[in-house]
Amino acid sequence: MKHNLRALVLGSAAGGGLPQWNCGCANCVNARSGIDILPQTQSSLAVTVNNTDWAILNTSPDIRTQIQDNQQLHPTGLRDSPVNSILLTNGDIDHIAGLLILREKHPFKVFLTRKIAKVISQNSIFNALDPEFVTFHEVALNHPFELVKGLEAELFAVPGKVPLFMEEGNVITDLEGEQTVGVRLQAQGSECMWYIPGCAKLTDNLKSRLKNASLVFFDGTVFNNNEMQTTKVGIKTGARMGHMPMNGEQGSIQGFSDLNVTRKIYVHINNTNPVWDRKSEERKIVEQAGWEIARDGMEVTL
Amino acid sequence: MKHNLRALVLGSAAGGGLPQWNCGCANCVNARSGIDILPQTQSSLAVTVNNTDWAILNTSPDIRTQIQDNQQLHPTGLRDSPVNSILLTNGDIDHIAGLLILREKHPFKVFLTRKIAKVISQNSIFNALDPEFVTFHEVALNHPFELVKGLEAELFAVPGKVPLFMEEGNVITDLEGEQTVGVRLQAQGSECMWYIPGCAKLTDNLKSRLKNASLVFFDGTVFNNNEMQTTKVGIKTGARMGHMPMNGEQGSIQGFSDLNVTRKIYVHINNTNPVWDRKSEERKIVEQAGWEIARDGMEVTL
Repeated sequence: MKHNLRALVLGSAAGGGLPQWNCGCANCVNARSGIDILPQTQSSLAVTVNNTDWAILNTSPDIRTQIQDNQQLHPTGLRDSPVNSILLTNGDIDHIAGLLILREKHPFKVFLTRKIAKVISQNSIFNALDPEFVTFHEVALNHPFELVKGLEAELFAVPGKVPLFMEEGNVITDLEGEQTVGVRLQAQGSECMWYIPGCAKLTDNLKSRLKNASLVFFDGTVFNNNEMQTTKVGIKTGARMGHMPMNGEQGSIQGFSDLNVTRKIYVHINNTNPVWDRKSEERKIVEQAGWEIARDGMEVTL
Repeated sequence: MKHNLRALVLGSAAGGGLPQWNCGCANCVNARSGIDILPQTQSSLAVTVNNTDWAILNTSPDIRTQIQDNQQLHPTGLRDSPVNSILLTNGDIDHIAGLLILREKHPFKVFLTRKIAKVISQNSIFNALDPEFVTFHEVALNHPFELVKGLEAELFAVPGKVPLFMEEGNVITDLEGEQTVGVRLQAQGSECMWYIPGCAKLTDNLKSRLKNASLVFFDGTVFNNNEMQTTKVGIKTGARMGHMPMNGEQGSIQGFSDLNVTRKIYVHINNTNPVWDRKSEERKIVEQAGWEIARDGMEVTL
């Protein structure tokens, strides 16, 4: 029997969200007015097979609002939640800080690599998660496991860097190991769904994995590598932040052009990215290349 | 010349907020429908004297939404913010986790006791706050300092406990020291405002401080000490959480009854507290005793 795999975008924006608290760029100003651009919360995706048991991929600092805004994730009893599992794809604050908000004695499992588990265990603040209720499960790369009822997941290395708060000296921004991972998700009899919210480079290895895929959620942090500079809000390039751009020869639009992926959706989109504006040239370019821009509350079924 | 001291309630609820992500109690269900009870975010107060430079007392995990919802705190330039200072009154997650969200290269000062500074420095995740922009200032108890332009603050010990994630063995819930503090705020020529969002006991010492005060924001976590038990959502008493109740002989209503405080406002109100419901008996009791219930966006000027 075929089971449907259902994904719900909880947050489509990168760290900082849209608008970002201290940002007055055109996108953030528009998002505050809510006219041309709707506000979007920070990077997170919820998945389920049976519509009853949900896993959340990355817990953003906006998780309380995200749960509030999505009825599927509301408690149905006095103290409970359909959230049974969490999976972390890196140790960045926009992906792990939400764990602190899920501290209210509800049982769930957290799946993560040994490297990311180390980040968590080195910070006593995460002791707020009572071990009687919340259990951490270290997962090896390339070993499928059951993420939540009826849903198989497998982690694999993608080029990336250590979290900002762990950077020291010269930072290697395209390490391949356990600090940044992608996820393959598959329900019984279903096609695969791929979730890769952070990726510094589309390697040949990664290309082979994604070839002919049905559905890929992919890193859409910046459109151009130097976009923080051109919008004058910062000096870091996309590459320095561990994210490949959409545009250009090394970009994801070009990289995916011969992969024959049925449905490609950008997630983890920075507030500076011009694709937020539906009327922008850049939005046209990505849409003409067959990409969709994720938005909070978007649902996709495989 | 008299300067006005202005306070803006960013979040009136205790840790977990209203609704809390995994709570199906009557208040949380009502807050989700938004009919009888409006949703409220987690504990935080913004203060200013000149309407330009703001300090935030406690940074809740909801700070991004709180800034978004209050135009006074929006950036006016490309990357800036009227938030110049932060003050922390304890190391609880609902008061410190928001710091992680303010990590975007905006300069501000964080004022806190040595005990709370230790909590922060022991958690490398807070390295996300670039020391080139964010500076931590340890403040001694009972020594006035300038919190933000034109505003003097003074910290004093109130009975409380260490943060949940640092609890070990038998927890003393009414320690008086640097782990839980209250704040006295005063603009030049103005009356004093007092902010005490967590308090385990109204000691004689504390009563003398607050006698004849013009404005007190006070710990309104629970109405009854055993309310988590009677609403069947948990087993902890208010006392175990380091919070005195509103009601009863040891409660704040009774404790304040002979203090002649002009304006008394409850903040840090737990989602289980029956006073959220405007039609409740308990709400009548607190209002008849001259108390107000804070709400997100409430402004008070001294």
